Amino acid sequence: MANPVLVEVTRGDVVESRHRGMVVVVDGDGKVVFEAGDIEHPVFPRSSCKAMQALPLMESGAAEAYGFGNKELALACSSHSGEDGHAVLARAMIRAAGRDEDTLECGAHWSFQQPILIEQASHGPKPGQLYNNCSGKHAGFICACCHTGTDTKGYVGYDHPLQAEIRGIMESLTGSILGHDNCGVDGCSIPTYASPLKGLAHGFAKMTTGVGLEPIRSKSAKRLMQACMAEPWYVAGTNRACTALMQAAPGRIFAKTGAEGVFVAALPEQGLAMAMKCDDGATRAAESMVAATLARFFKGEPEVQGRLLAMANSEMRNWNGIKVGDVRATAAFA
Amino acid sequence: MANPVLVEVTRGDVVESRHRGMVVVVDGDGKVVFEAGDIEHPVFPRSSCKAMQALPLMESGAAEAYGFGNKELALACSSHSGEDGHAVLARAMIRAAGRDEDTLECGAHWSFQQPILIEQASHGPKPGQLYNNCSGKHAGFICACCHTGTDTKGYVGYDHPLQAEIRGIMESLTGSILGHDNCGVDGCSIPTYASPLKGLAHGFAKMTTGVGLEPIRSKSAKRLMQACMAEPWYVAGTNRACTALMQAAPGRIFAKTGAEGVFVAALPEQGLAMAMKCDDGATRAAESMVAATLARFFKGEPEVQGRLLAMANSEMRNWNGIKVGDVRATAAFA
Repeated sequence: MANPVLVEVTRGDVVESRHRGMVVVVDGDGKVVFEAGDIEHPVFPRSSCKAMQALPLMESGAAEAYGFGNKELALACSSHSGEDGHAVLARAMIRAAGRDEDTLECGAHWSFQQPILIEQASHGPKPGQLYNNCSGKHAGFICACCHTGTDTKGYVGYDHPLQAEIRGIMESLTGSILGHDNCGVDGCSIPTYASPLKGLAHGFAKMTTGVGLEPIRSKSAKRLMQACMAEPWYVAGTNRACTALMQAAPGRIFAKTGAEGVFVAALPEQGLAMAMKCDDGATRAAESMVAATLARFFKGEPEVQGRLLAMANSEMRNWNGIKVGDVRATAAFA
Repeated sequence: MANPVLVEVTRGDVVESRHRGMVVVVDGDGKVVFEAGDIEHPVFPRSSCKAMQALPLMESGAAEAYGFGNKELALACSSHSGEDGHAVLARAMIRAAGRDEDTLECGAHWSFQQPILIEQASHGPKPGQLYNNCSGKHAGFICACCHTGTDTKGYVGYDHPLQAEIRGIMESLTGSILGHDNCGVDGCSIPTYASPLKGLAHGFAKMTTGVGLEPIRSKSAKRLMQACMAEPWYVAGTNRACTALMQAAPGRIFAKTGAEGVFVAALPEQGLAMAMKCDDGATRAAESMVAATLARFFKGEPEVQGRLLAMANSEMRNWNGIKVGDVRATAAFA
């Protein structure tokens, strides 16, 4: 069974391309309140689960010991654009633990955002590891290791104590068994584990509600998500979807993207969380999907809902600025 | 009915993303020799049909009058990467017609290829219209107009005589009725028309075999495709799929990509042509699809087939150079 078409891309009056996918919204008990497609399908969360991966930074006491506030915690959960403010803060976090950039094991890449990439290229050579979109997460990893006296060397590896701890946290949150069978290597070299989409959503619902979590985990999870909502620029960057979604209803929407068309989001006031994956991995579709799903839960607030629907259904223009078509969420979200 | 999954993207041992699509291979009479998915579905050819759009340049006598050789004709059919050699030749073509860069109406953009974009950004401001991936096609348009005494102003418009001529050529080649109902505006502002995938393939089969074409059209079509095969760098650029596909069997494969996951190709020796579209518009999938389809027709030549299969099934590596997965054509091509 193919998943439903969730996003269409039009040109003139014709649908030019179609994106299929799966979406699930659950409450803290795991009760499904909205779904489309095969919600039990195993999905690599990729960067969407960074707030889960940042829990050791909180639970170890490292974040408190190093004096981290909202910005540092948001950056620890981020896939940032490699703007200077992101890299500077990542360096400060690593220095707080007495280390430097060389401790990072994430690798280096040019920014994925064209305007930032152009800025980078116009000023010098390829940026270093601090500019990797995952450098904030890795800074958090290094801080967690240093605070607990764990050797940072090889901290990205499957068998490193930190990754084993994260694996246990994610098993507990998602209700899945994670191991070599469903493990892949992520862009930044850490393990990523394919688990059912519904379990990923349920993990975030537990984090935002605290349902079923020990007090320290509940408190840590809420603190991380609050930090992201308080400092959304540090979670992504200028003109990025995660940042714009969280700015659409400040303090009331948590949202985080992952590579290959994944998105998670949470609505703390409503005690709900969601996860979605575009089958083909397209970011443009995942962004439309998450905005369309979130919009369903702001029906009584036309202003917020309007902002979200404007992200779900957006115009495409060509090199001369002429409107050529739209990216639009389908009736599956109606 | 959903189209079949034609390309899978793996991570570790798990399929992370899936691309559906449609493929058709036909001979000069339009007889289908291979197919997958809904081959009657209307598809915007986008840039895949540039060799069709270059026919007025040939048939008007402009190409001969301006002394154009293989490189100029290949560039007229190209979606180039905006490397300096492409822009310099586009300028020379426009100058041959007594015009300059300001006559172009394609708009400007940074190169789509990251290494070229980085090179561009490290040397100066945003490049001009000569660096637009369509500048060679537009240079051909300008030359065709100038040679026939047609006003170039508004040459990108639906009602301009050149676009009306191209519409007629494409109707004749694809066997479709083209008009406002199935028209969209392309990235470079010219009209693009959605027509059944099989018709697009048949148009290229007519071009490569001459079946059913008047002598001038048959000669012009063959000349354009031969020029592309002779100078494949001018059709795309360094490390580009069209260029590599044509280099895999020099003079024996014509291949041209189009935006939103389209590809066409022709095998002049075998009298066949093909068209394909990835439903979701992904370039990585369209490139795998065309290589896998072409490989079917080189079964007796392991070396050529091996080159094509290496393009159909390629490794993905992360920022540290670790292999993380593959892009691979599915059993639909077996």
